[in-house]
Amino acid sequence: MNAYATRTAAQLQTEYEQVKAHFEDLKARGLKLNMARGKPGKEQLDLVSDILTVLQTPEDCVSDGIDVRNYGELTGIPAAKKLFAELLGCKPEEIFVGGNASLTLMYDTISKAYTHGLLHSPTPWAKLDKVKFLCPCPGYDRHFKITESFGAEMINIPMTPTGPDMDLVEELVQDPAVKGIWCVPKYSNPDGIVYSPETVHRMANLKPAAPDFIIMWDNAYCVHEFEGEFQPFEDILTLCREASSPDMVFEYASTSKITLPGAGVSVMAASVDNQKYMERLLGIQMISADKVNQLRHVKYLQNKAHTLELMQRHAQVLRPKFQCVLRWLEQEIAPLEIASWQRPKGGYFVSVNTAPGLAKRTLALCKEAGVVMTGAGATFPYGRDPQDSNIRIAPSLPPVAELEMAMDVFCTCLKLAALEMQNAK
Amino acid sequence: MNAYATRTAAQLQTEYEQVKAHFEDLKARGLKLNMARGKPGKEQLDLVSDILTVLQTPEDCVSDGIDVRNYGELTGIPAAKKLFAELLGCKPEEIFVGGNASLTLMYDTISKAYTHGLLHSPTPWAKLDKVKFLCPCPGYDRHFKITESFGAEMINIPMTPTGPDMDLVEELVQDPAVKGIWCVPKYSNPDGIVYSPETVHRMANLKPAAPDFIIMWDNAYCVHEFEGEFQPFEDILTLCREASSPDMVFEYASTSKITLPGAGVSVMAASVDNQKYMERLLGIQMISADKVNQLRHVKYLQNKAHTLELMQRHAQVLRPKFQCVLRWLEQEIAPLEIASWQRPKGGYFVSVNTAPGLAKRTLALCKEAGVVMTGAGATFPYGRDPQDSNIRIAPSLPPVAELEMAMDVFCTCLKLAALEMQNAK
Repeated sequence: MNAYATRTAAQLQTEYEQVKAHFEDLKARGLKLNMARGKPGKEQLDLVSDILTVLQTPEDCVSDGIDVRNYGELTGIPAAKKLFAELLGCKPEEIFVGGNASLTLMYDTISKAYTHGLLHSPTPWAKLDKVKFLCPCPGYDRHFKITESFGAEMINIPMTPTGPDMDLVEELVQDPAVKGIWCVPKYSNPDGIVYSPETVHRMANLKPAAPDFIIMWDNAYCVHEFEGEFQPFEDILTLCREASSPDMVFEYASTSKITLPGAGVSVMAASVDNQKYMERLLGIQMISADKVNQLRHVKYLQNKAHTLELMQRHAQVLRPKFQCVLRWLEQEIAPLEIASWQRPKGGYFVSVNTAPGLAKRTLALCKEAGVVMTGAGATFPYGRDPQDSNIRIAPSLPPVAELEMAMDVFCTCLKLAALEMQNAK
Repeated sequence: MNAYATRTAAQLQTEYEQVKAHFEDLKARGLKLNMARGKPGKEQLDLVSDILTVLQTPEDCVSDGIDVRNYGELTGIPAAKKLFAELLGCKPEEIFVGGNASLTLMYDTISKAYTHGLLHSPTPWAKLDKVKFLCPCPGYDRHFKITESFGAEMINIPMTPTGPDMDLVEELVQDPAVKGIWCVPKYSNPDGIVYSPETVHRMANLKPAAPDFIIMWDNAYCVHEFEGEFQPFEDILTLCREASSPDMVFEYASTSKITLPGAGVSVMAASVDNQKYMERLLGIQMISADKVNQLRHVKYLQNKAHTLELMQRHAQVLRPKFQCVLRWLEQEIAPLEIASWQRPKGGYFVSVNTAPGLAKRTLALCKEAGVVMTGAGATFPYGRDPQDSNIRIAPSLPPVAELEMAMDVFCTCLKLAALEMQNAK
């Protein structure tokens, strides 16, 4: 329990003055640090420089007889489909290779559900009075912004250590207005939780009332361990097929955090029937994504084994950063019991849940001291954290030396916010 | 007038037999030739190979202090905006730099008009009973497919030698259900017509009843002369601003036919207010387009003068191909007066208008003889050419030697179709 709650007024006053003095000291340093977004750091970008020159001549630009420089091949080049199918454990014909952002592929899927409907939609969602979407949270703000942008009613689903609360999910999908769910199954954003096999199987075996219910399976961190070995995962497409709902899931991934965040390749995996349906719609808006960049990725990443080797080099860069964050939290915050957090082994975030009511104030203080973090509430639909508790720490961008300072600021601000609240009681 | 119409039955029979024999002879060669789409040929792709290696090191990837490899810069890097603003004659702040396809930017604009509305939309178009769109035709099939896909009612606007029939356009925009018009102002697809200054000014001075009427100004061939010098054009954004309708136009262009068709950079130019509005919507679906590729283009193309030099090298490749097409038409078809065509100085097409009722049959015969062309009707909304007359020839892909054969086939098939019809009368 909150250690401050057991102290005397005098003890609290002393502690407040100490923490406040340290805060003022940090503030006086005029820091400008950023732990706001899961941006890879320069060292990671430099790791993959060879991808810039892997294609040099016209001859290099031919793959399976296709000149990747020219128009054509809407769904991507076969070699890229093969690579991604191996990474995700699905079949090449279940792969659509996109541009530099899986976010855009996810948006396109939801957008088409609204304007044209999905494969099994009785009607485009735009024609419906009400569309509801399940949002495990804390979650990824950009997911929630997509469904918010189209006017869906978003329903909070609590995250548990094994993934979304599946009892609640199974209950809610009985409502035909519930059209889908956002999922980050491995190293969830921001908690870093890996869905348990039971959660994954229950998800694939959902029997929603809506015939066009869609599992938006954002496997953004599918090979993104920063501690320990690669953890295999089951192919959600296979599981849904085995559960007789082959068209219920769309899976997404990208190389944004494998090669270059601004210049990677994205992928959408779905049943062959879903692919055929989406190709008809996507063929109106594009001729193909950048196939030269697809071939760069094929030549640079080669295959799953070689990709996993690269991920271990990313891990070497990221590990000390996460260790720094967790060390500060253990040393400074754990004894006070004013917050809890997961200890992820992959992904890009550490998710801190403060005692209720402290998140906004903590982040305001951080900002005052020159440390920018993801805005409070961002990890919840509509930006509203009902407990004002969740804070997402993104330690990948700053070098460790800066991170040490930023975490000093963060822990100080969290303590100060807790003390202010305790004093106000 | 149709020369066949003045011949005797015996003459026609003789001619038919000769042409038919030549057709059978061509067919027997088992040709496999393609003049279907405006695909650059290999020689053009090879022209720009240096773009593949223009960025080699981490240091190369920094532009105006921005590391283009990482996330960020939704609207594009400043250096790319500057380059495109110079090419189009607008201001850098009026530029949004997209991915590898202007088609996608156009689709996004129309899609957002339907789902969210445009800046001045009283309501999203999806909520309206009827949306009408003006389609100068013959035109670009992919434009028409976009508005068709969203269910707009498309209205044919005849093309004249100076651009769309502006009397009709000015009349039709009085209907508040008419929400926009597709335009290719320079070297129109497929006619290769350059809109006259009067047409351009009348377009900018339209006073549509719909407050959210949009001119979709696809400047796809803005620097794409294959004969003669670069022909300057007026900035449509400036003209609309001067006509007190600054937000009425979105202009599009890309480097697909400057650098690499599958790996170019696209651009959307619009008023600053339109850009602000669209950024809010586009920021939901993307973090930024591929900025590494943007910087490749900036370093490779450098500026307008240098880009125009490159376009002259493309012209050297394209000119003999267009000359071949026009020579065959002049020699074989002109004396018969069974078709007419423009003699474009830029763009990617020669548009042939046959005597009514000959297009489908001609293309079916071409196919029989192994020459694939753009489908009959494709240049009209819904794929319906009311005269069954327009045929789009795309001579850029085949080498000249193949083109000679393909044009022999084409002219033979056109004659055969005309003779069949004459014989049937």
